[in-house]
Amino acid sequence: MINEKMKNYGNNRSVIRDLFEFGNQRKAIVGADNVFDFSLGNPNVPAPKEVNETIRELLDTKNDIYLHGYTSAQGDAACREAIVKDLNKRFNTSFRKENLYMTCGAAASLKIILTALYAEGDEVIVFTPYFPEYKVFVETTGAKVIETPSDPSSFQIDFEILEKNLTCSTKSVIVNSPNNPSGVVYTEETITKLAALLEKKQQEYGHPIYLITDEPYRELVYDGIQVPFVTKYYRNTIVCYSFSKSLALPGERIGYVLVPDEIDDSKDIYAAVCGAGRALGYVCAPSLMQHVLERCTGLVSDLSEYLEKRDLLYNALTDMGFECIHPDGAFYLFMKSPIEDAKEFSEKAKEFDLLLVPADSFGTPGFVRIAYCVATDMIRRSLPAFEKLAAVYRK
Amino acid sequence: MINEKMKNYGNNRSVIRDLFEFGNQRKAIVGADNVFDFSLGNPNVPAPKEVNETIRELLDTKNDIYLHGYTSAQGDAACREAIVKDLNKRFNTSFRKENLYMTCGAAASLKIILTALYAEGDEVIVFTPYFPEYKVFVETTGAKVIETPSDPSSFQIDFEILEKNLTCSTKSVIVNSPNNPSGVVYTEETITKLAALLEKKQQEYGHPIYLITDEPYRELVYDGIQVPFVTKYYRNTIVCYSFSKSLALPGERIGYVLVPDEIDDSKDIYAAVCGAGRALGYVCAPSLMQHVLERCTGLVSDLSEYLEKRDLLYNALTDMGFECIHPDGAFYLFMKSPIEDAKEFSEKAKEFDLLLVPADSFGTPGFVRIAYCVATDMIRRSLPAFEKLAAVYRK
Repeated sequence: MINEKMKNYGNNRSVIRDLFEFGNQRKAIVGADNVFDFSLGNPNVPAPKEVNETIRELLDTKNDIYLHGYTSAQGDAACREAIVKDLNKRFNTSFRKENLYMTCGAAASLKIILTALYAEGDEVIVFTPYFPEYKVFVETTGAKVIETPSDPSSFQIDFEILEKNLTCSTKSVIVNSPNNPSGVVYTEETITKLAALLEKKQQEYGHPIYLITDEPYRELVYDGIQVPFVTKYYRNTIVCYSFSKSLALPGERIGYVLVPDEIDDSKDIYAAVCGAGRALGYVCAPSLMQHVLERCTGLVSDLSEYLEKRDLLYNALTDMGFECIHPDGAFYLFMKSPIEDAKEFSEKAKEFDLLLVPADSFGTPGFVRIAYCVATDMIRRSLPAFEKLAAVYRK
Repeated sequence: MINEKMKNYGNNRSVIRDLFEFGNQRKAIVGADNVFDFSLGNPNVPAPKEVNETIRELLDTKNDIYLHGYTSAQGDAACREAIVKDLNKRFNTSFRKENLYMTCGAAASLKIILTALYAEGDEVIVFTPYFPEYKVFVETTGAKVIETPSDPSSFQIDFEILEKNLTCSTKSVIVNSPNNPSGVVYTEETITKLAALLEKKQQEYGHPIYLITDEPYRELVYDGIQVPFVTKYYRNTIVCYSFSKSLALPGERIGYVLVPDEIDDSKDIYAAVCGAGRALGYVCAPSLMQHVLERCTGLVSDLSEYLEKRDLLYNALTDMGFECIHPDGAFYLFMKSPIEDAKEFSEKAKEFDLLLVPADSFGTPGFVRIAYCVATDMIRRSLPAFEKLAAVYRK
């Protein structure tokens, strides 16, 4: 009497959730300070102060129908206008508010664009490692995820494998840079090569291949690294964005899908985005937050804390002999398991109350993800535990 | 290259939207005061003052990680606890927070429970007239809507037709009382008879038939009418709710699915609800509003204004000779078209700048829906136009 697939999605919530539950149990026994939970990608910096100031000002000056009433399904016009204005200024683009569809966050953005594009039998290319929910979103449209391994030395795209995986059934390719879980940012060289390959394949197959760029971590980069704005490199690009990380508002569920005029069948795709939002039960993005965005888009939380955390952890762990991918963005450290089986390694880490996510569910066995969006003090206190863990595998 | 179904959902936004666009064009020509737009079900009363006071207090006393951070997927525990406590007090029930799954509003609640239960070939019974989005939500699960006409004299359930429509493929029945678009509230007698019939059919078919009750208008009733709380009459009841109307927060997208312990396969259904929320891209319900609900659940906006509007409009229109269903709840007046074709009647009404929604898309031809959640003054000013419209059809 139940949709079994949904039951399974509900019951198999993910390794991350299991670790989180384990952590809570351990905290009750050994004390919260002695459990080092690196499992969750929950930003731990406050929103820019303007966000709460704007909420107060809105409450003081606007009526409730404006504040809390429905907006149009595609989003409040003034909010969309402010967002495209900011994008155009930063990236020298010329988007119009009609290109933007406001959503309840990045997960909703992705689910909506995939539902708008996909039907039974179509293929989506994703690069491993990748956010495991992609698979859930794609599978429930009847389409198929084609896992495409990245170059294991850099976690940039391996173009030889990609070219093999691009078939006539490929409707789109999803890129996520800065990447969850690897922290890698695609270089301009990678994006340029990707654009050239997709352009060639579009010609060859005689139909568009859309590049869906999932970029909630766009502003979260270090050392002055530039994240190429992909629409400028490849015409058939659709952008999915969330303000969860840049404004540190993950619980408020606010983001967008950007469907540029330049892409093939732009109007039809925008219509299908509206239709998918409707069919999935999204009526509009939360209204108060849309009004906040009208006034706060373009601001970014103080992310400098993450740099300190990254350096502290990366340096300490590599000094201990662990192999880590140097993260240029996001707040994840991707660490090679010293043994082949990363699940076994994660189990061993639990003995030292270190909660590290084995990356098997991200499609890349042999690694763990360490989310360092945690108190810097906790990172410091965790280092002796990491040291003990390292000692286990030292020959 | 596009999912055609989604494109169509996006392009055929509904008669309501077309009327709205027409209204905007006319307003530009004849002035906003001379267009009488009764097309939209957008509450026009403010939220209880405690809502904005609570937001201010939260901003003053809580940190951003609490305010704007992720909650668990099923919703913040304290919020769910407050909601079930309020329900238990009001309805003498014994729900636990584990029965509640917070959603982004009633549309999300319905889409999630339908996705959790349904697969290709299953049937859902809905009573006409019904909210047209039901069809979109059901069709995209692969299931089939079985439109079941109500008793045309009262718009209560016609049990003879219902019994014929209840087949072995019926997994659930959706009721929406107070009803959009008819304003009708199901009596205790209707609910009791419905429960008995479903109980009988469950026995006959040897599997549960779930009663899904979609009740965003639960508190919006007049003349001391009681809305039976359906879980008390039928064991296999699942409740979908939204705070859009009771707290006048339609844009904030906040509601819930309630899966009681008593229903068959309760735990599996709750898991499937979690799985469906996940697969549909809902990560959590908006966090700030969940914290508001923890403190404001059970409050109701001042809905007395709607009573005045209802009486004014109902009395005036029936005096003019129009036949209307007397609305016991919600903010819709369901009026019989004086000619068979309600679309033609709606077109005629447009000539007098009266925007009335023909109910064909609600599954009940021959009627129009008049949403009276508008300024009382506009209702008064619209009456001469209604009088002119009535005169057209007077013999």
